[in-house]
Amino acid sequence: MIVMTAAELQAFLTREFTQVADDFAVERADQAGVCLRLRVQDKHLRPGGTVSGPTIFALADVAMYLAILARIGPAALAVTTNCSLDFMRKPAAGVDMLAEARVLKLGRSLAVGDVLLFSQGLNEPVARANLTYSIPPAR
Amino acid sequence: MIVMTAAELQAFLTREFTQVADDFAVERADQAGVCLRLRVQDKHLRPGGTVSGPTIFALADVAMYLAILARIGPAALAVTTNCSLDFMRKPAAGVDMLAEARVLKLGRSLAVGDVLLFSQGLNEPVARANLTYSIPPAR
Amino acid sequence: MIVMTAAELQAFLTREFTQVADDFAVERADQAGVCLRLRVQDKHLRPGGTVSGPTIFALADVAMYLAILARIGPAALAVTTNCSLDFMRKPAAGVDMLAEARVLKLGRSLAVGDVLLFSQGLNEPVARANLTYSIPPAR
Amino acid sequence: MIVMTAAELQAFLTREFTQVADDFAVERADQAGVCLRLRVQDKHLRPGGTVSGPTIFALADVAMYLAILARIGPAALAVTTNCSLDFMRKPAAGVDMLAEARVLKLGRSLAVGDVLLFSQGLNEPVARANLTYSIPPAR
Repeated sequence: MIVMTAAELQAFLTREFTQVADDFAVERADQAGVCLRLRVQDKHLRPGGTVSGPTIFALADVAMYLAILARIGPAALAVTTNCSLDFMRKPAAGVDMLAEARVLKLGRSLAVGDVLLFSQGLNEPVARANLTYSIPPAR
Repeated sequence: MIVMTAAELQAFLTREFTQVADDFAVERADQAGVCLRLRVQDKHLRPGGTVSGPTIFALADVAMYLAILARIGPAALAVTTNCSLDFMRKPAAGVDMLAEARVLKLGRSLAVGDVLLFSQGLNEPVARANLTYSIPPAR
Repeated sequence: MIVMTAAELQAFLTREFTQVADDFAVERADQAGVCLRLRVQDKHLRPGGTVSGPTIFALADVAMYLAILARIGPAALAVTTNCSLDFMRKPAAGVDMLAEARVLKLGRSLAVGDVLLFSQGLNEPVARANLTYSIPPAR
Repeated sequence: MIVMTAAELQAFLTREFTQVADDFAVERADQAGVCLRLRVQDKHLRPGGTVSGPTIFALADVAMYLAILARIGPAALAVTTNCSLDFMRKPAAGVDMLAEARVLKLGRSLAVGDVLLFSQGLNEPVARANLTYSIPPAR
C-alpha cells in the first residue's frame, strides 16, 4: 500500500523542493502515514520566539503531500485545495516540531487527510490541520 | 479525567434532549473519547436511502458535545462555534452509524476536537468533522 | 451566466426533493448568487426555540447547491465534499431565515462558494458557511 | 466604528512586525474592512514562480488581524485559533496580491471574519480564507 519509503520521500523533497528540503526530515513512512520533522531555525520564528503560523501551515502541507505521495508515487500531482488549521497551544521554544499526517480518503480525484502537529517532547498537539488535495486526471 | 460515564451521558441526553435522545446510544466513554451510535431510521435518510448531511452533522455535534461533557461535567455549557465536515464516502444503506469523538484541546474558554464517522461494519470513515466549542465563563 | 431562474430552481426542488421542498422558497437567483428562505417551523427548532444546527447546515447546503445549479443547469450533479460552518449569533426566535449563497469558483470538477445566513430582519449574520462540491465528469 | 486609520495600521505593522512590515501595504481601512497589499518578492514564490501557500496564509492572517485591530484598537490582543483556506486559482505571476478582509463577528472573546485574496488585475479570487481569533479578556 506504501509505494515510497521515508528515504525515497526525502530524496524527492531534495530534488523537487531544493529551497526548503533542508528544513524537513522524513522520520517515518508507513501504513499509518508519514511523520515529518521541521528543523526549527530562526527564519521559522516570529517575534517572541515561537514557530510562526505560516511555518506551521507549511509543515502541515508538506507532511500531507508526502503522505499522499507515499501512497500514489512521485509521478503524481496533488494540488492543495483546502487547508483548515486549528491553533490549539503555543509551540514550545527551542525545539523541533513533528507532524503526524494520515490519509483518510484517497479517491480518483480527491485526497483528504489530517495532521497533528507537536512540539518535540510535548504530548498535547500544538495544532491540527485538515487538508484536501485535488489529484489531476493525468496520473 | 473522565467525570461522566457512558450511562451518565445517556441519562443526560434523555433528560436534556428528549426529542432526539432515542436516536443516539452512547457506546463508550473513556480517556480516548466517546463513541456514539446513531440508530438510523427513515427520518435520517434522504432520497436514495443514504444518511443525510444534516443527520451526519447532528451526529458529529452530539458526539463531540458528549465528549466534552464527559470531561467537564453536566453543569457546564458548551456552544458550537465551528463545525467543518468532510464528506468522504457514501454511507452504507441499512446500517447504523458510529461516531468516534476525541477532545484535542480543552481550554478555559475553548474546546477543540474531531470526530470520525463510520457506517457500522465498514473500516473507512464516511465523514470527518472538526468542531470548536465556546465554553462560557460561568462554568 | 445564469441558466436557471428562481422559478425553475423552485420547481427543481419540488420535483427532486419532495420531502423538504415546502421548507424552502427561492427568493432570488441572479449573477450575484441565490437567496433562499427557510420557512421556519417547529420541526426546525431545538429546545429553547432557536433554529437548530442541523437545520442551519441544511439551509446552507441547499442554498449553495441551488447557486451552483443556477450556473450549470439541472442535469448536473454536485456532491458536497466539505462544509465549514461558523455559528456566530443565536438565531432570532419566530422569524424565517435567509441564506445568501455565492459561487466563488466553478471549475470543471470542483465548485467552491460561501453562504451568509440571517434571521429575517437582522443585519448581522447568524452563521457563515463555506462549501465545496465535487462535480462528477459526466456533466 | 473604525478606531484606527490605514496610516495608523501601517505604523502599527512597522512598529510591531518589523521583519515583515515592508512586505505589506495597508491600502484601505473603513467600515467595510481592510484591504492589504502584498508586495510580492522572490522570497514569496515557490518553484514555478507563483505565490506560495504559506505566503497566502500569512497575507490572509495579517489582513484579518488588522481588520480586527481597526475595530478594537492597537492595545488589544487577538490570537488566531482557526484559519481555513480554500485555494481556488493559481496566482498570476509577477503581480502583487490584494486581500480584502471583513469582520463578520466581533464578540467579547471571539472574532470571526473572512478574506478574499486576489492577484492584482484579476477579478476572480485566488483564494478565500475564514479566520477565527480569540480575544483575551484583559482587553
